[in-house]
Amino acid sequence: MPQAVITLTTDFGMTDWFVGTMKGVILAINPRAHIVDLAHDVPAGDIRAGAFILAAAYRFFPKGTIHLAVIDPGVGSRRRILAVQTKSFVFVGPDNGVLSPALAGERVQAVYQVTNAKFFLKPVSQTFHGRDVFAPIAAHLSAGVPIQNLGPPIREFLRLDWPTPRIGQNEADGEILYIDRFGNAITNIAERALSAFDPTRCEVRLKRKRLCPVCSSYQAVPAGKPVAVFGSSGFLEIAVNGGSAARSFHLKIGAPVTVRQRGH
Amino acid sequence: MPQAVITLTTDFGMTDWFVGTMKGVILAINPRAHIVDLAHDVPAGDIRAGAFILAAAYRFFPKGTIHLAVIDPGVGSRRRILAVQTKSFVFVGPDNGVLSPALAGERVQAVYQVTNAKFFLKPVSQTFHGRDVFAPIAAHLSAGVPIQNLGPPIREFLRLDWPTPRIGQNEADGEILYIDRFGNAITNIAERALSAFDPTRCEVRLKRKRLCPVCSSYQAVPAGKPVAVFGSSGFLEIAVNGGSAARSFHLKIGAPVTVRQRGH
Amino acid sequence: MPQAVITLTTDFGMTDWFVGTMKGVILAINPRAHIVDLAHDVPAGDIRAGAFILAAAYRFFPKGTIHLAVIDPGVGSRRRILAVQTKSFVFVGPDNGVLSPALAGERVQAVYQVTNAKFFLKPVSQTFHGRDVFAPIAAHLSAGVPIQNLGPPIREFLRLDWPTPRIGQNEADGEILYIDRFGNAITNIAERALSAFDPTRCEVRLKRKRLCPVCSSYQAVPAGKPVAVFGSSGFLEIAVNGGSAARSFHLKIGAPVTVRQRGH
Repeated sequence: MPQAVITLTTDFGMTDWFVGTMKGVILAINPRAHIVDLAHDVPAGDIRAGAFILAAAYRFFPKGTIHLAVIDPGVGSRRRILAVQTKSFVFVGPDNGVLSPALAGERVQAVYQVTNAKFFLKPVSQTFHGRDVFAPIAAHLSAGVPIQNLGPPIREFLRLDWPTPRIGQNEADGEILYIDRFGNAITNIAERALSAFDPTRCEVRLKRKRLCPVCSSYQAVPAGKPVAVFGSSGFLEIAVNGGSAARSFHLKIGAPVTVRQRGH
Repeated sequence: MPQAVITLTTDFGMTDWFVGTMKGVILAINPRAHIVDLAHDVPAGDIRAGAFILAAAYRFFPKGTIHLAVIDPGVGSRRRILAVQTKSFVFVGPDNGVLSPALAGERVQAVYQVTNAKFFLKPVSQTFHGRDVFAPIAAHLSAGVPIQNLGPPIREFLRLDWPTPRIGQNEADGEILYIDRFGNAITNIAERALSAFDPTRCEVRLKRKRLCPVCSSYQAVPAGKPVAVFGSSGFLEIAVNGGSAARSFHLKIGAPVTVRQRGH
Repeated sequence: MPQAVITLTTDFGMTDWFVGTMKGVILAINPRAHIVDLAHDVPAGDIRAGAFILAAAYRFFPKGTIHLAVIDPGVGSRRRILAVQTKSFVFVGPDNGVLSPALAGERVQAVYQVTNAKFFLKPVSQTFHGRDVFAPIAAHLSAGVPIQNLGPPIREFLRLDWPTPRIGQNEADGEILYIDRFGNAITNIAERALSAFDPTRCEVRLKRKRLCPVCSSYQAVPAGKPVAVFGSSGFLEIAVNGGSAARSFHLKIGAPVTVRQRGH
């Protein structure tokens, strides 16, 4: 059997023993699992940030990869646990929306509610399902357990409330979804949504004032100057060449951003 | 030979090259070693925090795992180095107590003082035994070197001074041992030590004032409210549903905590 | 084919999805690659810090390891990409000097400019060459693609401007190159450069005042006191036994440091 990749996206941080323990559990069940950390410093309970990270990264992994996301502020409550088979991947996580932006980009083949306690550690703690429930599920899947053995198929799952931009003929109104470590502010305005726009005539506006042009690289503007580019995640992002746009312009998640196309 | 797992618990951080270099040394000796990071952001020289992390996590790893802990403020001094064979695992670390809470939960079969410089890098630096001594030891063990080849058997090793709670008939007095990234304050009061208590009649008290009830999950109280649960490490921990107990109540490691059982 | 080790040194941090995505790309190309994180919290764009880390660590890895360094403030500009074959390793990175301190310690056999887009992801984004260019290159090399297939051989590459100390008969003038997580300040004064000095007669001076002696371990001075030792990277470093020299003495990268040998 080929080696299976399992990715981990959590808000457990790397300071304590949580992530390492999940890896121990996985390796005790499937010594051949290849575990990759996607992100663990998601702000505690921030489902949207975890969802954004997973959606930006998942498709670059080998076909068959199992993507496990444990941003789970409802641990210990009655929230459901999902295992989702798509054309290329398997996704596992709580049914709180953390998987939904990634699933929106995939052909979903089947969704299961994980209920079969045979695949959990015993006893299951009330506070650490990452260790006792999620890690074992991912490990068993990677070891070849058929996904339908985990629980009953279901039709619906929770979709995250994800802001959609308003795209007009010469203007697009969106908002900031994510701020990365470089201080780049990534918006929800996708490159393909602006395919009818001419980038060389576009400018980005914040609070009704022009901020910067739309260019094809950070270096298109002098060092220290702001610039908007369609970034590697496929969305328009506001950056400062060699600096932090978030710090320079006090950008926050949720802040409105407008792209305006000037006339000829 | 099966692939051997080596876990690393250090205070080296991930900012510099220390941990990566240890992995290079291990892989140069045993390319088949499977290295898992347990924690590297243990506060510099904090033996007790490292010991707590190792004790909370070690038993979830596959049988035969080699647990290496390098919290070693005495590097370059004459402190001893231990290699300990237990029924299920091997532990390697300085003889400063960092291994002792984990060993307290294991059946110890043999303890060796590591002295055989044949298994060290040459020359051994004065300041980075993680690279020059500990990593090579773990790697050689994972590659099949018998543990008794590392040095002479010894009888005694240093036990960490670990506060034990005072358990009365209707009251237990303990203290805070560890604060995790969520701000949960983990005490030294073990679930099994309170087996004669009725949790539904228990309350947690700080500074002679009632703080919160003992419940089975964070969600048993409204968001923002404090609650005590027996956490995944087996100890009573003080949490805030959706918040940080440490920040809300200024909890510090070493602070006294009382559990009181009300009358019928 | 044996498993190939690929090390990653970047300024991408671990908070976002950047490093995890690079690993996904590598594993999709070569499932047998063994990826090791060297450091990812290099300050954004700090070529010299990344170069120092790589130079301190690279030689401890197995022969044949591919060392990938992506500290690339010029991403999207016309800076070149290098693939360098040395006697024991392969180095890949932007031609901005990040590889040069490591290469200075190696026997360089051939240098190639990577231009063959056949080995890149498609399309190549303007902002994330770590994912689209560098990770694929390293993965293909690890899978056996001959390095000369990546592009034309070149003669010159950019050497980082690296401060060299002035070594006199009884005095050496250097500067601080790097400050590690313990607050140790590592200078550019190499142990071998002072081979004619008698360490027991040496003292370290800052701003024309004596700071501390040169000893062989941190414990040679009382707790809380400063000491200089030749550290594990081969350079003189200023430390405080059990504390942070950087914090205690407000040490900064670039600050001048003098070693003076007293007369008999």
